[in-house]
Amino acid sequence: MKLIVLSVLSLSLSFFSSSETLPAASVSKEMDPPNIIVIFADDLGYGDLGIFGHPTINTPNLDRMAMEGQKWTNFYVAASVCTPSRAGLLTGRLPIRSGMSSDRRRVLFPDSKGGLPQSEITIARALKGNGYRTAAVGKWHLGHLSPHLPTDHGFDSYFGIPYSNDMDKVEKTDHFTLADEERYQAYNVPLMRDKEIVERPADQRSITRRYTEEVVNKINEFGKDPFFIYLAHNLPHIPLFRSAEFRDQSLAGIYGDVIEEIDWSVGRILQGLKEAGVAENTLVVFTSDNGPWHVFRNHGGTAGLLRGAKGGTFEGGMREPTVFWWPAGIQPGVVRDMATTMDLLPTFCALSGTELPDDRVYDGYDLSPLLRGTGKSGRETVFYYRGQKIYAVRKGDYKAHFITQLEYGNPTAHPVTQPPIPLENSPTVLETPLLYNVAVDPGERLNIADDHPEIIAEIRAVMEAHKAGVVPVENQLEK
Amino acid sequence: MKLIVLSVLSLSLSFFSSSETLPAASVSKEMDPPNIIVIFADDLGYGDLGIFGHPTINTPNLDRMAMEGQKWTNFYVAASVCTPSRAGLLTGRLPIRSGMSSDRRRVLFPDSKGGLPQSEITIARALKGNGYRTAAVGKWHLGHLSPHLPTDHGFDSYFGIPYSNDMDKVEKTDHFTLADEERYQAYNVPLMRDKEIVERPADQRSITRRYTEEVVNKINEFGKDPFFIYLAHNLPHIPLFRSAEFRDQSLAGIYGDVIEEIDWSVGRILQGLKEAGVAENTLVVFTSDNGPWHVFRNHGGTAGLLRGAKGGTFEGGMREPTVFWWPAGIQPGVVRDMATTMDLLPTFCALSGTELPDDRVYDGYDLSPLLRGTGKSGRETVFYYRGQKIYAVRKGDYKAHFITQLEYGNPTAHPVTQPPIPLENSPTVLETPLLYNVAVDPGERLNIADDHPEIIAEIRAVMEAHKAGVVPVENQLEK
Repeated sequence: MKLIVLSVLSLSLSFFSSSETLPAASVSKEMDPPNIIVIFADDLGYGDLGIFGHPTINTPNLDRMAMEGQKWTNFYVAASVCTPSRAGLLTGRLPIRSGMSSDRRRVLFPDSKGGLPQSEITIARALKGNGYRTAAVGKWHLGHLSPHLPTDHGFDSYFGIPYSNDMDKVEKTDHFTLADEERYQAYNVPLMRDKEIVERPADQRSITRRYTEEVVNKINEFGKDPFFIYLAHNLPHIPLFRSAEFRDQSLAGIYGDVIEEIDWSVGRILQGLKEAGVAENTLVVFTSDNGPWHVFRNHGGTAGLLRGAKGGTFEGGMREPTVFWWPAGIQPGVVRDMATTMDLLPTFCALSGTELPDDRVYDGYDLSPLLRGTGKSGRETVFYYRGQKIYAVRKGDYKAHFITQLEYGNPTAHPVTQPPIPLENSPTVLETPLLYNVAVDPGERLNIADDHPEIIAEIRAVMEAHKAGVVPVENQLEK
Repeated sequence: MKLIVLSVLSLSLSFFSSSETLPAASVSKEMDPPNIIVIFADDLGYGDLGIFGHPTINTPNLDRMAMEGQKWTNFYVAASVCTPSRAGLLTGRLPIRSGMSSDRRRVLFPDSKGGLPQSEITIARALKGNGYRTAAVGKWHLGHLSPHLPTDHGFDSYFGIPYSNDMDKVEKTDHFTLADEERYQAYNVPLMRDKEIVERPADQRSITRRYTEEVVNKINEFGKDPFFIYLAHNLPHIPLFRSAEFRDQSLAGIYGDVIEEIDWSVGRILQGLKEAGVAENTLVVFTSDNGPWHVFRNHGGTAGLLRGAKGGTFEGGMREPTVFWWPAGIQPGVVRDMATTMDLLPTFCALSGTELPDDRVYDGYDLSPLLRGTGKSGRETVFYYRGQKIYAVRKGDYKAHFITQLEYGNPTAHPVTQPPIPLENSPTVLETPLLYNVAVDPGERLNIADDHPEIIAEIRAVMEAHKAGVVPVENQLEK
């Protein structure tokens, strides 16, 4: 399982130098396959980290992680809501291929019977088959009944809340004004260890801290064995909770407190890797499942200069603040190439020498040439699904919207997301699609459809070819 | 003129650590007063640099400068258009105090007879009186007739275009689509050396490069003498021009090309300081005169997550991406304190031991405790003037808008700036002001006026007290 990877000599001083001539990575040696940690925030916006432009949320650990590693500015998720986004990340496939997206029920709920099918191969299952030890910590949301739980899907262990932290609501609460940690009992969500419920309601006030401790414990337990840890925070999804030490510490209010605790968590995990002596060859990826939930106003984040939010197919719904960190294997800098969470599975398999069966369609690309600064990934398109329909397609720098729809809920409740031309609260198939150059105009403000009908036609052809390759399967969210 | 300042031991590794316990700056020694360079961009938006969150504009030199120095995220200008903003920076006083703001003509034009009065004390005049050598390079826009030129105001030399690069228009051009450097003759603007016109029309295709060379030459000429250089780029104000080497290099189009040339210029100047052996004790400040000019669409920048644009008093019009760099004297990190361009004069005077006459009101605060990481500046308020009227006031984290108005021009031409509730194209005095907590809600989306009438009352009292201290003077812009 030994692999040849490049070692980068000088990390700390060459950050932000991607446009300049850097000394070529010049030492190659046999290295063990890397340990891998994926940290997946929930509803974090593109603009919510200091290094991604937030003026008041203080994220020194993530900022430093980006400085030492790579900041990715065109990194997408597979869907703009929880369940399908997570299915896409873990399987390397669009959620429609596993039945994990729906037009009727957008995510799994406590009354759902379905979940990620056993026929799917998660990152954990693939790496476990190649000798990795594996752990899932945090939000799952891919089915809370067997055989859909993490330990049914290649994870040696699981510790977390199996779905969203706002579910199992037993008291009437108002998310808009809620800032009272004492009311965590209003959400009767279970906390599970493997397949057992160990606490209900989960005490969410300490959930980020406890998830972090679990990850650090796992790092120490795994020692020198190769490992894969999937940490999916339940936060900053509403209702917001933070530990006592983080309460009222952020300039940016309760939402800032929550992000600053997640940032602390990142720092604690990197420190744990160093203390265990395994930091050098551990790849840590930080991203989020979808954009900010604007309808919750100052309890939701910001997509920065991007338009749109969670639930929608404008950039703010699906482009996420993403950082890759791996002292032994990464070329530090800013990466502006397109990539998605579905690329993680093929990337991790390439880095670890793990083979995948060729009996199915994968939607990911191997990002390792970009991590090493040696080449491209091959990705030229991103498909923006909402439920089972494609609303938009990006090809190169151009993105065409074929269907538009307001992100979520009632338009009058959207002081933030409402664009100049109001969107409808139901799907609107556009006679002339909207077309944006999202490299020049990342905010999707300047519709250039009239100038480039040929680009729309080209993108439409790509979309139709893609659609023809999608085979209907049993729907899991409508069970 | 010897001063005691703190020397910071380790710069490169402690960036982004402002929230953490850093080793206290532990070496103090007698140092010469610092050299000072102010780099002032024109119409650069808050979100236009990589380190401030732009996904496709590549600014490795400014990013590194921020990493080695301080990134300021709440830094304001004195006005949201050119002339008054520049008057505020150079005098440390609100432009209304020098007659450099007007409700009728917002800036100076080629037919203007007025300019910065001789009674004003610019940064250059103050520092020159204390032994500094001084140079102005670039856009002036404080009067192009004597006695209003840079060399009338304390600068030993001047090289630049004395007003905006879109003036003296002799051909009909369309800024919206203009991307043709060959048409620079359409703008018959003069290029001056001291008081002489040396080129007309100025060949703007090479203007950023030539300004940069002038600055590097001045650094070499000044040698070990203390110096103050004011470099005010004409760009990225429209019409956009870039050197041949930068043409079509940016992912972000022509606007990105222009910013990337300015970023190159910053890198070249820092390199020039190093080559001259004076980098260690040179304070370099980078900021811009006002927010992005949205009406010019993809020829204008972006304010990132901030609302509004050039010409207006929402944050996007007046908050600027700002970096301080000074190897020998700065505590690296992110500074989230409020500050303004008017604070530069008292700061530079404090750092250089320069005394100012006490016969006038200054609107600036000494920022040196913030630069050294030893304390605060004392600033608690920011006044957002448009012309001679105060439209909004920030006190602490709260900002009240008493008057609103669309940024510039025709609302239908504003696909970008038009907010959910359309603004009028004339001043609208609000019966109930808008109130935002701009720390929690930097995008000014969640009006909390109804919840906090007492804060509005407090801010109104601050505004009225301020107004009572403003003495009318002769208007220079209406001459």
